[in-house]
Amino acid sequence: MTTHAPIHAATHLNRIGQGRHFLQIPGPSNVPDRVLRAIDHPTIDHRGPEFAALGLQILAAIKPVFGTTNPVIIYPGSGTGAWEAAMVNVLSPGDSVLMVETGQFATQWKHLATKLQLQPEFIAGDWRTGVNAADIEARLSQDSQHQIKAVCVVHNETSTGVTSDIAAVRAAIDAAKHPTLLMVDTISGIGSIEYKHDEWGVDVTIAGSQKGLMMPPGLGFNAVSDKAIKASEHATMPNAYWRWDEIIEANKKGVWPTTPATNLLYGLAEVLDMLHEEGLDHVYARHQRHAQATRLAVQAWGLEVLCADPAQYSPVLTAVVMPKRDDGTHYDADAFRKLVLEKYNMSLGTGLNKLQGWVFRIGHLGHFNDLTLLGTLGGVEMGLANAGVPHKHGGVQAAIDFLAKT
Amino acid sequence: MTTHAPIHAATHLNRIGQGRHFLQIPGPSNVPDRVLRAIDHPTIDHRGPEFAALGLQILAAIKPVFGTTNPVIIYPGSGTGAWEAAMVNVLSPGDSVLMVETGQFATQWKHLATKLQLQPEFIAGDWRTGVNAADIEARLSQDSQHQIKAVCVVHNETSTGVTSDIAAVRAAIDAAKHPTLLMVDTISGIGSIEYKHDEWGVDVTIAGSQKGLMMPPGLGFNAVSDKAIKASEHATMPNAYWRWDEIIEANKKGVWPTTPATNLLYGLAEVLDMLHEEGLDHVYARHQRHAQATRLAVQAWGLEVLCADPAQYSPVLTAVVMPKRDDGTHYDADAFRKLVLEKYNMSLGTGLNKLQGWVFRIGHLGHFNDLTLLGTLGGVEMGLANAGVPHKHGGVQAAIDFLAKT
Amino acid sequence: MTTHAPIHAATHLNRIGQGRHFLQIPGPSNVPDRVLRAIDHPTIDHRGPEFAALGLQILAAIKPVFGTTNPVIIYPGSGTGAWEAAMVNVLSPGDSVLMVETGQFATQWKHLATKLQLQPEFIAGDWRTGVNAADIEARLSQDSQHQIKAVCVVHNETSTGVTSDIAAVRAAIDAAKHPTLLMVDTISGIGSIEYKHDEWGVDVTIAGSQKGLMMPPGLGFNAVSDKAIKASEHATMPNAYWRWDEIIEANKKGVWPTTPATNLLYGLAEVLDMLHEEGLDHVYARHQRHAQATRLAVQAWGLEVLCADPAQYSPVLTAVVMPKRDDGTHYDADAFRKLVLEKYNMSLGTGLNKLQGWVFRIGHLGHFNDLTLLGTLGGVEMGLANAGVPHKHGGVQAAIDFLAKT
Amino acid sequence: MTTHAPIHAATHLNRIGQGRHFLQIPGPSNVPDRVLRAIDHPTIDHRGPEFAALGLQILAAIKPVFGTTNPVIIYPGSGTGAWEAAMVNVLSPGDSVLMVETGQFATQWKHLATKLQLQPEFIAGDWRTGVNAADIEARLSQDSQHQIKAVCVVHNETSTGVTSDIAAVRAAIDAAKHPTLLMVDTISGIGSIEYKHDEWGVDVTIAGSQKGLMMPPGLGFNAVSDKAIKASEHATMPNAYWRWDEIIEANKKGVWPTTPATNLLYGLAEVLDMLHEEGLDHVYARHQRHAQATRLAVQAWGLEVLCADPAQYSPVLTAVVMPKRDDGTHYDADAFRKLVLEKYNMSLGTGLNKLQGWVFRIGHLGHFNDLTLLGTLGGVEMGLANAGVPHKHGGVQAAIDFLAKT
Repeated sequence: MTTHAPIHAATHLNRIGQGRHFLQIPGPSNVPDRVLRAIDHPTIDHRGPEFAALGLQILAAIKPVFGTTNPVIIYPGSGTGAWEAAMVNVLSPGDSVLMVETGQFATQWKHLATKLQLQPEFIAGDWRTGVNAADIEARLSQDSQHQIKAVCVVHNETSTGVTSDIAAVRAAIDAAKHPTLLMVDTISGIGSIEYKHDEWGVDVTIAGSQKGLMMPPGLGFNAVSDKAIKASEHATMPNAYWRWDEIIEANKKGVWPTTPATNLLYGLAEVLDMLHEEGLDHVYARHQRHAQATRLAVQAWGLEVLCADPAQYSPVLTAVVMPKRDDGTHYDADAFRKLVLEKYNMSLGTGLNKLQGWVFRIGHLGHFNDLTLLGTLGGVEMGLANAGVPHKHGGVQAAIDFLAKT
Repeated sequence: MTTHAPIHAATHLNRIGQGRHFLQIPGPSNVPDRVLRAIDHPTIDHRGPEFAALGLQILAAIKPVFGTTNPVIIYPGSGTGAWEAAMVNVLSPGDSVLMVETGQFATQWKHLATKLQLQPEFIAGDWRTGVNAADIEARLSQDSQHQIKAVCVVHNETSTGVTSDIAAVRAAIDAAKHPTLLMVDTISGIGSIEYKHDEWGVDVTIAGSQKGLMMPPGLGFNAVSDKAIKASEHATMPNAYWRWDEIIEANKKGVWPTTPATNLLYGLAEVLDMLHEEGLDHVYARHQRHAQATRLAVQAWGLEVLCADPAQYSPVLTAVVMPKRDDGTHYDADAFRKLVLEKYNMSLGTGLNKLQGWVFRIGHLGHFNDLTLLGTLGGVEMGLANAGVPHKHGGVQAAIDFLAKT
Repeated sequence: MTTHAPIHAATHLNRIGQGRHFLQIPGPSNVPDRVLRAIDHPTIDHRGPEFAALGLQILAAIKPVFGTTNPVIIYPGSGTGAWEAAMVNVLSPGDSVLMVETGQFATQWKHLATKLQLQPEFIAGDWRTGVNAADIEARLSQDSQHQIKAVCVVHNETSTGVTSDIAAVRAAIDAAKHPTLLMVDTISGIGSIEYKHDEWGVDVTIAGSQKGLMMPPGLGFNAVSDKAIKASEHATMPNAYWRWDEIIEANKKGVWPTTPATNLLYGLAEVLDMLHEEGLDHVYARHQRHAQATRLAVQAWGLEVLCADPAQYSPVLTAVVMPKRDDGTHYDADAFRKLVLEKYNMSLGTGLNKLQGWVFRIGHLGHFNDLTLLGTLGGVEMGLANAGVPHKHGGVQAAIDFLAKT
Repeated sequence: MTTHAPIHAATHLNRIGQGRHFLQIPGPSNVPDRVLRAIDHPTIDHRGPEFAALGLQILAAIKPVFGTTNPVIIYPGSGTGAWEAAMVNVLSPGDSVLMVETGQFATQWKHLATKLQLQPEFIAGDWRTGVNAADIEARLSQDSQHQIKAVCVVHNETSTGVTSDIAAVRAAIDAAKHPTLLMVDTISGIGSIEYKHDEWGVDVTIAGSQKGLMMPPGLGFNAVSDKAIKASEHATMPNAYWRWDEIIEANKKGVWPTTPATNLLYGLAEVLDMLHEEGLDHVYARHQRHAQATRLAVQAWGLEVLCADPAQYSPVLTAVVMPKRDDGTHYDADAFRKLVLEKYNMSLGTGLNKLQGWVFRIGHLGHFNDLTLLGTLGGVEMGLANAGVPHKHGGVQAAIDFLAKT
C-alpha cells in the first residue's frame, strides 16, 4: 500500500486571495467561466462521430481569427512547441534564418532555433521598439545566394509591449525580391490584434491558446501558406509529432492522426463562439481602447511606457518603466509586484531578462472589460502608493475620463 | 463584422445519448467528475507562488506511479509527443534502434522513429503475443559493435490487449551484456498496471494522461534514468521543446521553463490524490480482477480473446475476435460497434490496421468498478444478439459469478 | 480571529467509492453532468432582462411535462413544501380531506395535513396496492353535505413502487357528483410517468425536482386548475410564502415576487431541454421498459415484487421483498443494502416504516439507460450472493434477454 | 412526440456581456467559483453516511456565523420562507407583533405577517434611518397586558442601506421588562456584518444564502433561542414544513427529516470554509472598509447617501440619492442603471417602492475585494458622466486614496 499525503489541488488554487483574482499578466489571461465549463464536459471518443462534427466546426471557425482560408494546425502543446513545429516542418539543419531581437521572446525563439541546429542571424534591438522592416530589406538584399531560408519575427513582443508591422516586413521581403519564408509569432497577438495571415503573405503563423484566445495553456497553432506546405515536403529536419501533412489530411474529416487534447478543444470551440458573437472587429477595437486607457493612466502617473514608438504600442499589454531614485537606480519592480499580489490579489507581469527589476507589465487582454480595467489600474495606483514609488495621482481618473467618452 | 454560425460545443457533447455514456475504448477512458472539476478551476499565474507549490507536490506524487525516484518529465503534448521526446533526447540521426512488432502502436512508434531519421530494426510479431525477450537477447548478442543504441518496446499494446514482461527484456539486455538504452512505452499501462521504472532498469518510460491516469488527453510523460540523462548530453538529434535538461532544472522549484498546461496539471493533481487514496496496489489488483471477469465473459460467449498467451493478458483492455461465418469471413466488428454505440450508448475500440473489421476492443480501465463493468459486458452481450453474431448466453452471468466470489 | 477546522466538502463527496457511484435510490436520482454544469453558471440578477427571458421559457416548457396549459408554480423548497403549498392555498383549518394510505409518503402527507389543522380521513391500505377508486366513490357518495374539501392521492408511491390510476380517481369523484378538489402527489412520477393534469381533472398537482426531473433537491412544484385558483381566493389557512396569486402574476413576465432559486432554475432549463430533446413519449416508454426488465430480474431471482397488482407496477422504482428464513423472519434488507453500498458503490432505497428490514427498493428512473440498469441489477445479484440471501441465478440474464429483444 | 424549442440556458446566461459581469446589486451577490464548483458535485444519497458526516460539519460551522451555540435551522427556501418559518413556529393567528418601518423589506415582512393573520403594529419610519430603540421601549412599556408577542426588526435594511443596532433593541425590551420575543431579519447582514444572536438575546434570527453567504438563492435560515423553542411548543399557527422540532432532532445526526437541498448545502460547506479561512473578524472589517470607501466616493461625486445617520451606515450596500434638476425632479435612477448595465456590464440595485426612480443601490458585499470595488465605483462614475448626471470628478480617486492608506 502506497502512502502519500494528498495534494488537494483545490486548496492551493483557492488560496489565491479574497474576492476574484485579477490575472493581469500578459497571458495566461483570465479564462471565462463558460470556457472553463466547456472544458469540463466529459471526454468522449476522439474517433467517434460527435467529435468529428465538432472538429470540423472548430477548424472552420478558427480560420478568420488568423485571417486565412488555409489550414490552421492545432497541437497539444505550448507556444514553444508551436515555434518548434513551424521550424521543423520547413527548415533543414544548418539553414540560416534571419531573426529580430525585439525582446525576450524573440531571444528565446532564437535560442530554440540554435538548439534545432539552425543558424539564426539576429538583428540587434533595443527592447523598446519593434521590427525595423528596412533592416530586413537591407539584409535580404545582400543575400544574393538566398542563404536565408526564413525571416522570423514576433508580431506582439510580450516582454516589451511592442507590436511590429507585419505587412511592412512582407513589403520589405518583396522589395528585396527574396524567396525567403516569413514566419510570424503572434502567440500574444492572436485573438486580440487584427491578424491577416493571407493578406500579409505570412508563411507560418505561430500562436498559443492562453492569451487572446482566453484559454488555459496547452494548445499551439500553426497557420500555413501553400508555399510553406511545399517547403515542408523538402525540409530535412528530423521530426514526426509536428508534421503538418498527416494532420492536414486527417483534419479534412474533423479528426487528428494522433490523440488531440479533446477537452481543451471543447474550450476552443467556446472561445470561437465568443469571438464571433462579439465580432472580431469589435474584439480588436476593444483591445485598442483598453490599451489607450492604460497608457493614459501611466502618463498621468508620470511613469514611462517602455515602448518607445507610439505607432508600435501593443493593444495587449503595457510595459511600464519604474522611476529612478536619486542614485540613478530604479525603484524595484518586483517588490512592487509582490506587494500588489499580496495586498490586492492581482498578478502583474515581471520584467524579463534585461528588463528585470525595473519594468513591470500590465496585461489588458482577453476576457476583459472597462470595469476590470479600472480595477487593474486601481491596483497599480494603490500599489505604487504603498510601495513608496513616486508618482502623480490621477491615473485611474484619466482612464475613467477617457473610457466614459469613447 | 465577422459572422459565423455558433458551434455550441455543448450541443454536440450532450447529444451523446440518453443516460451516462460508456466510454469503453481503451483510452481516453472515463474521466472522473472530480478530475474534470479540478481542471475547471481558474487559470492562475504559472510563475506565481501557488502554482510552484502545486507543481512540487505533483512532481513528487507522480514518482511512485512510475516506480521511480528519478525525475518524471511532464509535457503539454500527447503520447506521440512523449515518444518523440524520448527519442530526440537520447538518440542521434542514423542511430539503430531495435523495436518489436507487438501491434499497431509498436508499428506507429517504428514509423515515428523512421521519420526521426533513426534506423529501426523491427522484430516481426503476430499481433497476438508480446515481446519475446529471447529474440532481443539473440539480436543484441549479435551486435558486437553495439550499433543498437536503444531497445524500444511497448509494455501494454493497446491494439491487441497484450502486456509484455519488461523485467524479462531488461534481463535479456543484461544477459547480452549490451550497453543499449531501454525505452518502454506504457502509455496505456501507467496507472493501471504495476510499473517499476527503476527496478526494471528502464531508461526512458513514455506515458500519456488519457488512459489509466483518468485524464483528458493533453499531457505526455517521460520518466528517465541517470543513464538516459547522460546519453541526452551527447545526442545530436535537433530538438528544443522536448529537452529534459531545462525542465528538470526548473522542476526543482516546481515550475517549468516554458508555459505548462496549467489546468490539465490541476487534473493530474486530483488523479494522483485518487490513486494514492485508493492505494496503488489496490488499483493494480482492481484492473486484474476486471480483466479476468471480462475474459470469463468472452469465454462464456464462446468467443476468442485475441491475446494468445494467458501470461500476457492485458489488465487494461481485452481484444475480442469476431467469430467466422461458414464462408470463412468474420462477422463485421465495426458494424457491431456501430450498433452498440447507437443502441446502447457505449463506445468500444475498433480493430486497428490488420485487425480491422474482425476484432473489437473492450476497455476496462481507469475510473471503473464492478457495476460499470457489468454494464459494459451487458452492452456487448446485447449487441452480439442484436447484430446476429453467433454466441452463447451467459457472459455477463459468468462475470457476475466471478466478481461476487472475489 | 475565529478558528474552525475546514469542512472540505469535496473530500466527503469524493469518498463515495471507486468508479462512478450508482445512486439507485428512488430519488434523488443521478443528476446528469449537463444539468450540474448548468447549475454551475454564475448567479445573475433575478430582476434583470436575461433572467426574465429565461424564466418565461422555463415556465412555458414545463407545462407539457405536467400535461397542463395552466400555470405551474415553482418554489424554492422541497416536495414536502409543495405538499404544504397545495393545501394552504385552497383549504381552511378544520377542513376534512380524504386521503388514501398507499404507503409511507401518503402517511407522511396525512401527518402534514394534521399539522396544518386539517381533518384527514385516511382510507386504510395494505402498502402493496394503490388507490382503489371505488372506495373513494363510495366515501364521497356518503358525504352528502360535501364536508370533504379535497381528495388527496399519491400517484406514484415511492415507498412501495405502486402507481395509482388518477383518471379512475377523477371518474370516481365525477360518479359521486362531488365538488371536492382533487390533489395529486406525483413527486416521484413527474418526468418519468405520463401525467395529464388537465385531462385527468386534477386541481393541484404536487411535484419535486429530484426524481424524474433529474435535478438536485430544492425545487417544489404546484400545477393548478382554474377551480383550485378560485378556491384559493376563499381559503382561510394562514399562509404567505406559498401563495399562488402573486407568483402567477409575476410569472407572466418571467420573474418571481420573491427571490427564486436562480441556479436550480438554470438546471431545470437544461432538464426541460433534455426531456423535450428525447421526447416525452420516449421518456415514459423508457421508464416502462426498464421497470419491466427489473421485474423480470426479480422474478428470475425468485424474489417477490412488493406491488401486488401488475396493473399498478411503478415505472420508476421496484420494491423487492426479502425472502424468509426457515424461522419465518425475512433476510435483513438493510444489511444487504449496506453490503451493496460498501462493496459495489451503489445506494439502494431502504424499506420505510412498516417495510423496514424486509423490503428494499431499486430506483430505475431519470438519467438512466440499459447499461446502467444492467450495472444496477448486477449489483443486486452480486449483493444477494454475498449476503447469503437465497435466490436463483439469472436475474441479470433475464433482463439482458428482454432488453436485447425490445 | 412533444416538440419544444430548446431553451439553451447557457445561451441566455452567457449573453450577459463581454468580460466578467459585475453583479453589484445588494444580493444575490457574486458567487465565488469554488462555491459554484462545490454545488456542481454529484448529488448523493441524503440518507447515506457521507452526507450525514457533511451535515454535522455544516451545522457546527455555521453557528459562529450567527454568533450562537444554539441550533441553526436550514431550509430549502428563500429568505421570505425563513420569515414565514420564524413566525409560524412561535406565533398564533391573531397575535400582535411590533414591527418597524425601516424600508421596503420591513414593509414586505409586515405584509407577510398580515397574510399570516397576525396583527402587526408598524412604527412608522422615514426609510432613511434604522430602528429607534426608544420607540420600541416606549411602546412596550404601554403594553402592560403583554399583547405584543414579538418585536420584529430588520438588522440590515437592504432597500435603504441602513443598519440598525440590535443590542439596543434588546436593551429596550429589557428596560420595558416585556416578555416579548425578539425576531431579527439579517438576510442581507449575515456573513457581512458581525452578528451576535446569543449575546444580543435574539430569539429568532432570519437569514438567506444569497448575500453575505455568497451563495445562489435557495436556502433560508432560522437561528433560535431556547425561549423561541419553548414558544414553538405552544404556538397554534398551522404549519408543518417549517417546524423546527423535527429538524432539530434529525440534525443531531447530521440529517434532515425531509429532503434537504443537497447541492446547495455543498456550496454552504464551501462558504463556511471560506469565511473561517479568512476569519470572521476579517470578513466584517473588510465590509466596513469597502463601505467607507464607497461613501467617500459618493461624497466626492457630490451625491447624497440615503442613510441619514452615519452611525447606521450599512457595511453591505450604499443607497445613493440622484441629484435634482432645476425643476426639482431627480435625475432618473433607473435610466442610469440601465445605461450602466448595457454599457459597463454591471447590475446595480434599483430604488424600491417609494425610492423608485430617484435612488440606486451599490452592493459591496460577499466575494469582493479592493479591485472589484474600484471597478464598481468606476462603472458608477462613468455611468453618471454618460447619463449626464451632474457630479464632481474624483469619486474613484477618493476611494483609491482611502484604500491605499488602510
